[in-house]
Amino acid sequence: MHVGHLLTRAALRYPDRVAWIEGEVRIDYRAAEARVNGLANSLLASGLRPGERVGLLGANCYQAIETILAPMKAGMAVVPMNMRLHPEEHAFILNDSECAALVYGAEFADHVASVRDRLPSVRRFIRVGGSGPDIEYERFLAGASGAPPPVEPRPEDLAWLFYTSGTTGKPKGAMLTHRNLLAMEATFLVETNPAAETDVLLHAAPITHGSGLAMFHHIARGAAQTCLPTRRFDPVAVFETIERRSVTTIELLPTMIIMLLAAPERVRYSLKSLHTILYGGSPMPVEKLREAIAAFGPVFVQIYGLGEAPQTITTLPRGEHVGERLASAGRPTTNTMVRIQDEEWRPLPVGSTGEIAVRGDIVMAGYWKRPDATADAMRDGWFRTGDIGCLDADGYLYISDRKKEMIISGGSNIYPREVEEVIYRHPAVHEAAVIGVPDATWGEAIKALVVLKPGLRATEAEIIEHCRAHIASYKKPKSVEFRESLPKSGYGKILKRELRDPYWAGQERKV
Amino acid sequence: MHVGHLLTRAALRYPDRVAWIEGEVRIDYRAAEARVNGLANSLLASGLRPGERVGLLGANCYQAIETILAPMKAGMAVVPMNMRLHPEEHAFILNDSECAALVYGAEFADHVASVRDRLPSVRRFIRVGGSGPDIEYERFLAGASGAPPPVEPRPEDLAWLFYTSGTTGKPKGAMLTHRNLLAMEATFLVETNPAAETDVLLHAAPITHGSGLAMFHHIARGAAQTCLPTRRFDPVAVFETIERRSVTTIELLPTMIIMLLAAPERVRYSLKSLHTILYGGSPMPVEKLREAIAAFGPVFVQIYGLGEAPQTITTLPRGEHVGERLASAGRPTTNTMVRIQDEEWRPLPVGSTGEIAVRGDIVMAGYWKRPDATADAMRDGWFRTGDIGCLDADGYLYISDRKKEMIISGGSNIYPREVEEVIYRHPAVHEAAVIGVPDATWGEAIKALVVLKPGLRATEAEIIEHCRAHIASYKKPKSVEFRESLPKSGYGKILKRELRDPYWAGQERKV
Repeated sequence: MHVGHLLTRAALRYPDRVAWIEGEVRIDYRAAEARVNGLANSLLASGLRPGERVGLLGANCYQAIETILAPMKAGMAVVPMNMRLHPEEHAFILNDSECAALVYGAEFADHVASVRDRLPSVRRFIRVGGSGPDIEYERFLAGASGAPPPVEPRPEDLAWLFYTSGTTGKPKGAMLTHRNLLAMEATFLVETNPAAETDVLLHAAPITHGSGLAMFHHIARGAAQTCLPTRRFDPVAVFETIERRSVTTIELLPTMIIMLLAAPERVRYSLKSLHTILYGGSPMPVEKLREAIAAFGPVFVQIYGLGEAPQTITTLPRGEHVGERLASAGRPTTNTMVRIQDEEWRPLPVGSTGEIAVRGDIVMAGYWKRPDATADAMRDGWFRTGDIGCLDADGYLYISDRKKEMIISGGSNIYPREVEEVIYRHPAVHEAAVIGVPDATWGEAIKALVVLKPGLRATEAEIIEHCRAHIASYKKPKSVEFRESLPKSGYGKILKRELRDPYWAGQERKV
Repeated sequence: MHVGHLLTRAALRYPDRVAWIEGEVRIDYRAAEARVNGLANSLLASGLRPGERVGLLGANCYQAIETILAPMKAGMAVVPMNMRLHPEEHAFILNDSECAALVYGAEFADHVASVRDRLPSVRRFIRVGGSGPDIEYERFLAGASGAPPPVEPRPEDLAWLFYTSGTTGKPKGAMLTHRNLLAMEATFLVETNPAAETDVLLHAAPITHGSGLAMFHHIARGAAQTCLPTRRFDPVAVFETIERRSVTTIELLPTMIIMLLAAPERVRYSLKSLHTILYGGSPMPVEKLREAIAAFGPVFVQIYGLGEAPQTITTLPRGEHVGERLASAGRPTTNTMVRIQDEEWRPLPVGSTGEIAVRGDIVMAGYWKRPDATADAMRDGWFRTGDIGCLDADGYLYISDRKKEMIISGGSNIYPREVEEVIYRHPAVHEAAVIGVPDATWGEAIKALVVLKPGLRATEAEIIEHCRAHIASYKKPKSVEFRESLPKSGYGKILKRELRDPYWAGQERKV
């Protein structure tokens, strides 16, 4: 069994249902299958072989969905890249993964041109839209057979090479196999997001990241997908598309939900079709989650996953978004095991805080060409996530923070997320990030970087006092700085490293 | 991930929900988990090692459910046996699989005694109920820890060694791994039978066969299970239990459904709780299916599977039990691929009749200690089923018959099922079986063996004339014999070989 067959099967079952919608374009499942097969056959005809890799660089569009599916049908793997990276970083990924072809959006033509003489493995460049030196996507497809290519990928074959953001060192490619993606797809259908054929999935977050991983179970059910280009996340475009396309489902990062909440235009649109907001990828402040439920209704489904174990490690369903559970990432899904372990991989008892490890068919095959990193991260089928957390007696997972974000101050461990949660409860706060900065006495001192809501005021002393009133004194920030905005990754995560680096210039962090 | 974890997870999520009901006994999920862990720990403490096998022989009871789950938790495999077999056949299976322990119902004590000195591998005998020389099940469990055993089976480990009925030669053990069973479980939940925690599954057919395979997805949802002992299928007991236990779901063979239809007591019971009858395992005559829908309502879900690819190759859901589709086995499930191929494993185009082959995570790892048989049946991940059928343009599978049941008469292939379907449409017919018997001129001649409904009459000439009116003349029976009953296997399948053998004594069949 392989991922590409999901589309073949959907084309057989739902030939006339709309698969992709974009502008005036409507492509039904029969046509989508033929187009994806056409791309797969053209890749093979142009000299690419099963087992090779195809890079993808571009904003969300249905051609990007097709470019994710077609290599999988041809027995190749796709390497979707974060478009916010620097061209040098794209070059690194394309070379590291030894991509044989690159499909890119015309908006990245200059970008590609700036590095193309340093991409020795790339034999084929395919441009989506626009004009330029490389063959255009639709021309590349033209004339190719719409029948499935004569290739039968095995479940253990590489399907999606998922480059992690690599906050330290170079990015690493997490090898997701057909089996990984099908296990994730089945888990979505069993419990995380049992999609129906009447659903419409909006890709507002990048397809090259989390949002793209929601495509498979929607295809399995014959649901429709529509895209927003994502060079910049635009709340108004999201509202407008939900209303116009009767969108039912969307996958977002917490920072994106906070942007939607802050957009005053929200009230001008009907969002009544929306029944599911899948969110995850970084901590969601409980206070913001409460506001979001008040604004959008009980439509939130939390997912917890990483590039190495995508999307469905745990799920907090709609109905469990109450009380204490709002701070939880939910419970392990049916076919996934989660445990808390210490630094020596020893399982810890219920209620202990330690590193979160996961086991199951969603766990990657390993890091691409990095046996060292694989051996460090995986043991006996368990993958250690680098996240710190605990499981309660009912099986709910509470994530403290990323291990590497932990602050050690005066010998105590402080998880920034806990402090941020408290700061978010201050009525004037729009966004907050807590980091450790060098301190001669304590090793690290806690600093809060805060963006205030437009028109609202707060002082450093007020924020510190607010924290002192709600958490242990040693966890309160020693200092607070107010900022206009916080730097974010291409996927919308707050870049703590960028915030931290200036303070640590010339010094070595102990953690 | 392993099968035993489904129960651990259910005990965490639904500790107080009833897992097993039997007579006055109600065991909740917390207790069920502790009991199964107790059995697993006792097996380990008594000297059995992970990787060994545990035989199971007995009528349906909750201890049988526990005996299927506990070895899987201990890293062992279970070998559930058809209780209708001869003791010599049980001995063959126990020796072939080298079982280290045998759990048996007290009703089989004499039976076990008759062969126990020829079971060199069996070091532990455990008796459920009654009295006798071996340790009783509850005593074996007593005092054992209720915590999960310190074993972590891998997905590729053997979980259930499923002995096929072996209509030719000795039975073979189909090796079902944890991954196979979890893939089946997920497919049930995704589409074949999305169970809810309010469901009650009745095991009226043997747990050691198909009905037992429905336990896993019910456990995953925290549903309840109840058992009927199955030495003889008793329609009244089925009706009575459905009413008393508010049974929602039952898995039956077609012959069992025919027995339910023929039982006049049906009208005395309320069956309103029943929303799903899963059926499969042998062809269901369309005429009987119509009658059954009229009698029980639109509750039928057809499943197609074999010991080597259990339960979920295709599904015909409730809503598709209409018109032509009644003769279909449904369409391939989400994570399963089906194709029609010729004798040389070449895929055949849509609409062709040929051998049905299946691929996906439900396909067994191979036959136990039979690399020859495995190589014959499996190639490139495809398993050939031995069933003849075709796929239509909409992806529906129509099964003609087992390859080995095909009759060759005058050079034409005749599938008994097709002839039987016509005979079943005769109003006086209760059951029918069509076989080939030796014929000097035609090689084989078609013979129908018919059981009439009580109080109704039909002659040989009428049955033949009825067939001539509905199918090609060369397919009509040359002779018809009326019988009081037809011989059936322990699982309720009509034993064609037993019907055929007397006619072929001293002659060799060409097919």
